[in-house]
Amino acid sequence: MKNGKFYFNLCEYGIMLQIYTGNGKGKTTAAFGLAFRAHGRGKKVAIIQFVKPNESGEFKVAKSLGILIAHYGYPGFIIKEPRTQDYEQAKIAWERAKEIIQSEKYDIVILDELNIAFFYKLLNVHDVIDFIKNYKEKMEIVVTGRYAPQEIIDLADLVTEMKEIKHYYVKGVNAREGIEF
Amino acid sequence: MKNGKFYFNLCEYGIMLQIYTGNGKGKTTAAFGLAFRAHGRGKKVAIIQFVKPNESGEFKVAKSLGILIAHYGYPGFIIKEPRTQDYEQAKIAWERAKEIIQSEKYDIVILDELNIAFFYKLLNVHDVIDFIKNYKEKMEIVVTGRYAPQEIIDLADLVTEMKEIKHYYVKGVNAREGIEF
Repeated sequence: MKNGKFYFNLCEYGIMLQIYTGNGKGKTTAAFGLAFRAHGRGKKVAIIQFVKPNESGEFKVAKSLGILIAHYGYPGFIIKEPRTQDYEQAKIAWERAKEIIQSEKYDIVILDELNIAFFYKLLNVHDVIDFIKNYKEKMEIVVTGRYAPQEIIDLADLVTEMKEIKHYYVKGVNAREGIEF
Repeated sequence: MKNGKFYFNLCEYGIMLQIYTGNGKGKTTAAFGLAFRAHGRGKKVAIIQFVKPNESGEFKVAKSLGILIAHYGYPGFIIKEPRTQDYEQAKIAWERAKEIIQSEKYDIVILDELNIAFFYKLLNVHDVIDFIKNYKEKMEIVVTGRYAPQEIIDLADLVTEMKEIKHYYVKGVNAREGIEF
């Protein structure tokens, strides 16, 4: 956002890249919590979700608030090798993300589960890093997902590892609507 | 919630206690992201914030959606010793939290920064644990804040440590509206 207050706040810092990774619960929810925080302060927020074929509970809320949000992903899990449609969906999602960033209409762009797209080699991490490095406008970019590649950790301004200390799945608790999705 | 779908989902697991702790960014935002996820699925959510004299960006959004939210805390930081008002505010917040839990109207109750209240000994961790242990209805309780005491980690079903790998404050970036509060 070129003339907003947010741009002014950040202008001395350049692009800010935040990463939420690790094997613990709370990565996507932290990014969405940040989205809602920013929205509550009048910032413009966009969220692109990678490798996510389904709408989550927070998706519906973000949409209802007028946050730009879109999810991309082919139904079903990637078992061993990604399918053609997994590559296609990730490519479409990344093109959409670039468009949104280049529009300069947003203060914060969240790329949810982008690390998973890197992990399955659906996208090339160097293409994404080159794009971020060459982007000259000020913006907050937030990337989530397990297995953040070292290259993106090196580039980042802030990295939090969500570390699993205890998880109730060991008690046999499955993913629950409204809690896990 | 006695007769809702959520109660039914959980009835074989009992009370679920989630803890988000550690020195990294993303604890409160993860709890709020979870609140918005649950809200998006039609769950009833309440949020009590401890040691928080000010309204954050996400506070405003939660309120606008009809989530029950209240924050308690005396203005100014606790420098060395807590002030009388810090004890008073924490006590009022915990009484309110108990009322909300006992009302049985909520599926999820978030106790934001409760660990900080323990850290400063504004509340006795054993009082809180006794209350949780003796509460017989089904509910999801989410506790956030650095320095989670071992007793509450032992009681919890899920614990994520938000571990700081990198933070932009080392670059001199101060807390920013819409990002840190």
